[in-house]
Amino acid sequence: MKMRHKTEILTIAGELFSERGYHGTSMRELGRALDMKSASLYSHVKSKEELLWEIINHTANRFLEHARSVPVDISPEQQIASLSRGHLELIAQNLHYATVFFHEWKYLEAPLHDRIKAQSEEYEAFFYRAIEQGVQQGAFHITDIHLAVRFVLSSLNWTYQWFEPEGDLSLERLAEHYIALILNALTGEP
Amino acid sequence: MKMRHKTEILTIAGELFSERGYHGTSMRELGRALDMKSASLYSHVKSKEELLWEIINHTANRFLEHARSVPVDISPEQQIASLSRGHLELIAQNLHYATVFFHEWKYLEAPLHDRIKAQSEEYEAFFYRAIEQGVQQGAFHITDIHLAVRFVLSSLNWTYQWFEPEGDLSLERLAEHYIALILNALTGEP
Repeated sequence: MKMRHKTEILTIAGELFSERGYHGTSMRELGRALDMKSASLYSHVKSKEELLWEIINHTANRFLEHARSVPVDISPEQQIASLSRGHLELIAQNLHYATVFFHEWKYLEAPLHDRIKAQSEEYEAFFYRAIEQGVQQGAFHITDIHLAVRFVLSSLNWTYQWFEPEGDLSLERLAEHYIALILNALTGEP
Repeated sequence: MKMRHKTEILTIAGELFSERGYHGTSMRELGRALDMKSASLYSHVKSKEELLWEIINHTANRFLEHARSVPVDISPEQQIASLSRGHLELIAQNLHYATVFFHEWKYLEAPLHDRIKAQSEEYEAFFYRAIEQGVQQGAFHITDIHLAVRFVLSSLNWTYQWFEPEGDLSLERLAEHYIALILNALTGEP
């Protein structure tokens, strides 16, 4: 039996939740995967939901941190490019956490669920404001900005389903192509 | 205890698998949700995996049937519009099955998993050929058709995560906006 740090527990929990789902993973299985006794595991974490919350909250915070770091005095096209690149990087570099975030956040209980919902809305607002600014400047031709935000985030989010960090397609190449497609979608005449 | 038809069993299994995941749902829970005794449930279905297979195979077949019904003698733009509209309709009208399809198909065992993979590839080829035709005719400006197919399908697939059939946004309006964004993405100058 090993001593483990909280970050190791979270990493393995992220792998198991991502592979078998939150409801499909028991604390017993997590203990086994970590080679830890239950008592020792419970000395680090109160409950399975605490792990789910930490994984999802960490992921939401990283998305938000990146969005907040994008300068607002660059062009709307540059803002969308930077927001999109950061989004793809976060997913591609944290596939397990991203999978848990996208599949399992609905299982958080009400107050935590609402906090993640608020963070998601704050995050989406960065995309909203960039697109809105582009529309005001005449660069983007969008009549429903909310739907355009959904469209952009949808195209980016799905990456967690198929991207292989060790595969032939580099993250850089993926980002370059996707950003070009997104900017074409936003700038095209209706 | 009730008598149930296979389709009812599949519908409830789709709901439970979609809400709690395949691994998070037991046959015992399914029996309870159906108000059926285990023996009676097992007289209809061999195993939980049989249910997963039927839900996923049914969904894959419906996607394929629609793609095969799109005429190939219409313009590439019209083909993409029709393929996209059908895709959105199938998701929006079958949210539980779509969720199970997207989240759980990886849990199928090897021969079944490979069959769905082959069907998915056959399906994606309809999008590929339409985009390729558009490139050849000079209507679409795409240098990596595979990535463009992924982009288009990603933007469409994600709909299962948020679309509310009874909500304010109609499927028709969603399809109209998304198709315009997709066609702009494909036709825009690089």
